[in-house]
Amino acid sequence: MSKPAIGFCGLGAMGLGMATNLVKQGYSVTGFDVYPPSLEKFQKAGGIPSTSLSESAKDKPFYIVMVASALQAQPALFADDGIVKALPKGTTLILMSTVPSSYAQSVEKELKDIGRDDIFFIDAPVSGGAGRAADGTLTIMAGASDAAFEKGKWLLAEMSAPSKLFIVEGGIGQGSNMKMVHQVLAAIQILAVSEAYGFGARLGLNGQDVSEAVIGSDAWSWMFENRTQRTLKEDYFPGASAVTIILKDTSIITLMARKLQYPTPLCSIAEQVYFAAVDRGWGANDDAGIVRLWTSEPVSSIQGSFSAEEKQQKQTLVKDLLKGIHLVAAAEALSLASHVNIPLAQIYELAKDAAGGSKQFEDFGPKMLPVLEGQSDSNGKILNTYIEKLHKALDEAQAIKCPLYLGNGALALLLQTGKSRDLASLLKFYTQ
Amino acid sequence: MSKPAIGFCGLGAMGLGMATNLVKQGYSVTGFDVYPPSLEKFQKAGGIPSTSLSESAKDKPFYIVMVASALQAQPALFADDGIVKALPKGTTLILMSTVPSSYAQSVEKELKDIGRDDIFFIDAPVSGGAGRAADGTLTIMAGASDAAFEKGKWLLAEMSAPSKLFIVEGGIGQGSNMKMVHQVLAAIQILAVSEAYGFGARLGLNGQDVSEAVIGSDAWSWMFENRTQRTLKEDYFPGASAVTIILKDTSIITLMARKLQYPTPLCSIAEQVYFAAVDRGWGANDDAGIVRLWTSEPVSSIQGSFSAEEKQQKQTLVKDLLKGIHLVAAAEALSLASHVNIPLAQIYELAKDAAGGSKQFEDFGPKMLPVLEGQSDSNGKILNTYIEKLHKALDEAQAIKCPLYLGNGALALLLQTGKSRDLASLLKFYTQ
Repeated sequence: MSKPAIGFCGLGAMGLGMATNLVKQGYSVTGFDVYPPSLEKFQKAGGIPSTSLSESAKDKPFYIVMVASALQAQPALFADDGIVKALPKGTTLILMSTVPSSYAQSVEKELKDIGRDDIFFIDAPVSGGAGRAADGTLTIMAGASDAAFEKGKWLLAEMSAPSKLFIVEGGIGQGSNMKMVHQVLAAIQILAVSEAYGFGARLGLNGQDVSEAVIGSDAWSWMFENRTQRTLKEDYFPGASAVTIILKDTSIITLMARKLQYPTPLCSIAEQVYFAAVDRGWGANDDAGIVRLWTSEPVSSIQGSFSAEEKQQKQTLVKDLLKGIHLVAAAEALSLASHVNIPLAQIYELAKDAAGGSKQFEDFGPKMLPVLEGQSDSNGKILNTYIEKLHKALDEAQAIKCPLYLGNGALALLLQTGKSRDLASLLKFYTQ
Repeated sequence: MSKPAIGFCGLGAMGLGMATNLVKQGYSVTGFDVYPPSLEKFQKAGGIPSTSLSESAKDKPFYIVMVASALQAQPALFADDGIVKALPKGTTLILMSTVPSSYAQSVEKELKDIGRDDIFFIDAPVSGGAGRAADGTLTIMAGASDAAFEKGKWLLAEMSAPSKLFIVEGGIGQGSNMKMVHQVLAAIQILAVSEAYGFGARLGLNGQDVSEAVIGSDAWSWMFENRTQRTLKEDYFPGASAVTIILKDTSIITLMARKLQYPTPLCSIAEQVYFAAVDRGWGANDDAGIVRLWTSEPVSSIQGSFSAEEKQQKQTLVKDLLKGIHLVAAAEALSLASHVNIPLAQIYELAKDAAGGSKQFEDFGPKMLPVLEGQSDSNGKILNTYIEKLHKALDEAQAIKCPLYLGNGALALLLQTGKSRDLASLLKFYTQ
């Protein structure tokens, strides 16, 4: 039996890999993009290029949208010569771009309003980068009706690793919400990489010394390890992940948070610093290059002269900074997950082994979940140690006039727990 | 009867004016400074210059210290050839530098430890700028024992305006704490000036349009009005008040806050941005020049083309940004005042007509005080309007990728009031 034809809109870094992978799996894929070189690449890889959205959608029982944003998706889907008008009855339409959940919900509503609720719509953003897109081993977070999943789940499975397809309860919007919650960790932890290397540099630590101290320690994060090579080699031009990419996701979080009237203080802080990086002209550079806000010298050239003991003390300051940030990031992400009704066990499972993972998240997630589920209200004054250590790091940073945007934000949140100093009070900041 | 001799250490912009004013009042003032041109100026004004601390202190029944920081005060006071060793028995020693209250307290302790508690010590930082220093109309915030005040209050009165001498209960440290609380407002509201003009510029508003909208409105602050002329004329080199000056005071606040394990989130945010300005090489420039973080074009050259109605909408966004920031600044300052046992009515009285004043502080201070004093726990959901308006301003800023450090920090704090949306919940963030 021949495999079904698939329409595909958006052949960027991610989309091209995803579409090409489907071609390799034996599907007939018609791909649309506005950028001719992408179409050429796709054609060379065996795909069917199309310069018309209608054409790419005509007669396709399955259609995937992987453009950069809601702003691009909206006209692609709903213009007169757009995708939806050309789709046959009963098509499965999968929106895989990272968009606000409110946008995914607006697509569902608009399909209904224009009498096209015959379309089986799935909200399914992805995570994992261009390499995993091309391998068909992405992490996919999908929300939809049961009927839509019955139609389209197999196709999601084609694009994801076996344990990385997360079907999120709650319908359209919950895929996007799951992604948003994951990106809370990413948004904070990507800036934390630069803040840590920057603080290290200002302390006189070589980048190598910082990376050796952090990787494998309880200050570890996936982002830190992932960005380290680019940081040490100043591989920012363009590097692998532009500032504008994480900024886009960060802005989705803070936009949604404002709509929900829900505080996401560390994400907001991160967003302002990303804006500042864009203002410096670094938007298209790798996000690891944000460390240049702290040092114009390459971090791998820095060589302070101090004893082994002094070096270790400075390394400890950097680790304590990261641990404090990662702990509060976990609280910010999981409390938002709870607020938007994402199953907590599921987001924990997803994030701990994904790009949002950190040792703090892995260790403290299981302590936070019962609090958020109302099954536990204290784990003792465990924040005392974090406060003390972050306090020391910030004293030192202040003495050398080193900005620590996230570190100071994290301490303010930890201190607001007042005398109780427990996780419940930290989470209450978000959930009260 | 001849007037008593006074020793004076620290003839900088403030100290020179203060010492010279005392000379004009007919006192014999011996002034010390490490910078020869300052000594020359002082001599021309009729003062007695001295290049020896001991000399400046010898036989003086009154001694005033007005150096830049605790770091300068400590050796000046306690070195072997310093002030204290040379002071005669029963001298009144007034420390008028802005220092952490913990430092003022350490001076009191050290005097006792070295057997010099015969000295009547007064902790009396000032506010008001070089002009009022020279006129003898400063605001002075003083803490000391009753005995010390009996000795030295008249001299404080010589340097301050009649209604601007604030005797703070609680002894040594409380003058500095009062100043610290006032500077919470200054630290936040100075950055808010640049953030507002910067946001305006990015919206296409001319600086003149911003100033006209803000001054006289409920978005007014003393700092905004004071910095406006320098902002509009780019009078930053050096202007009137360097970034490093407000940074020094801001760092005292956050340092003390960490010691007290008390959160001052907006001050922390401001401090990081001041560090960033110093990193840009702007430390010695006027703090109004921080607006260059937002726009390289002078704000008075900017001219977007839009209708009168559009202009008014944009002006409203800027005003709403400032109102939200000023409201939270009032909460941050007054709750800290309460925490360090500064009489609330007194700080309110002082700050509303001083450099920390704002329309929001003036209007909402009287509503916050009873909450902090435990006499009221709600004024209704009055934060709803602030949240809505700040929300709109931040949506717009995000759309144009404009960083609003304080605006986002303020919204996070307002949102943490959850469903209650009242002042009590806002203040609880700090006081719980």
